[in-house]
Amino acid sequence: MSGKVVVNRCMSLDGFIAGPGHSMDWGDDRALADFVAPDDLAEIAAATGAMLVGRRTWEVGERMEAEKPDSVDYPFSGPMFLLTHRPLVPPNPHVTILTGDIGDAVATALDAAGGKDLEILGADVAGQCLQRGLVDEILVYVLPVLLGEGIRFSSPGLARTALQPLSSTRSGDATILRFRVRKQSDQTV
Amino acid sequence: MSGKVVVNRCMSLDGFIAGPGHSMDWGDDRALADFVAPDDLAEIAAATGAMLVGRRTWEVGERMEAEKPDSVDYPFSGPMFLLTHRPLVPPNPHVTILTGDIGDAVATALDAAGGKDLEILGADVAGQCLQRGLVDEILVYVLPVLLGEGIRFSSPGLARTALQPLSSTRSGDATILRFRVRKQSDQTV
Repeated sequence: MSGKVVVNRCMSLDGFIAGPGHSMDWGDDRALADFVAPDDLAEIAAATGAMLVGRRTWEVGERMEAEKPDSVDYPFSGPMFLLTHRPLVPPNPHVTILTGDIGDAVATALDAAGGKDLEILGADVAGQCLQRGLVDEILVYVLPVLLGEGIRFSSPGLARTALQPLSSTRSGDATILRFRVRKQSDQTV
Repeated sequence: MSGKVVVNRCMSLDGFIAGPGHSMDWGDDRALADFVAPDDLAEIAAATGAMLVGRRTWEVGERMEAEKPDSVDYPFSGPMFLLTHRPLVPPNPHVTILTGDIGDAVATALDAAGGKDLEILGADVAGQCLQRGLVDEILVYVLPVLLGEGIRFSSPGLARTALQPLSSTRSGDATILRFRVRKQSDQTV
């Protein structure tokens, strides 16, 4: 019994997943956990069995933790996979580096999730997974801000992708939207 | 007793308010009204007393109506204002052309709304209104598609704008998000 592959991201209402320079300051120095209700984050983390993270998102996370050590905002402690061709210096014993094909990486990480969901973090990795039809769901934390500029949700070249809304939940000052990715095999409505 | 100034727009989940070339085909040739529950559109239209529309949005609407005459998708029949420096050829008796300052245009149209809401349509007009602090609320119809490319929600140069979530409602295959625009005078949380 396999879990779902879930692309997981924050977004400003105007469709940016980070500010200029990949800043994750969503206003008044607030990070995701300052917007979302802790119970909702805990519930999503509890459904997650593994994470597959892109290199840039990893580095943004490292930078955030260095700048604001108390900002650990996601109660997850399972297997963590990093998709990168550059080794981590120094190596990090808590993360498994994957370098191969994105399909193989997803299969490896999903297997490690032990029947729970695999969470995909990072615009490039998410884009590659979407292109390859590997994503089951997209979970978006819509944060209450217009950024005006920043890093776009879709990486260039992403093909049009039909979705099906699953749920919409107000959580603290955020809104959590969950969509299923429609597969090519779905009937056209 | 004055109504609210509400920026009103459709958006793909990845933050585009139209496809390339200002296409309003959101998938399988479906327009907004094919996604949203008719009762919800009727309720929003009933709260609207006037509309202020930008020139490009007006032309997109004209084009849609020419291509698909049955696609009249919004049960609104009140005063309509068009912000443009170019006269309509031929003139349209159902629309009042405004050419002046955006603040004056909003005041004129809001007055015509007779205590109901003024709906702002069009990325440029909406951006100008946001820049000038004229907007009370933003209403977004999130449509279940990733477009990958198109016309961005925010026009270039839009300053960071703090919002406050008001509601999130599933409506048909769309999700209607409503936000209050936080004014400079609001307390910082």
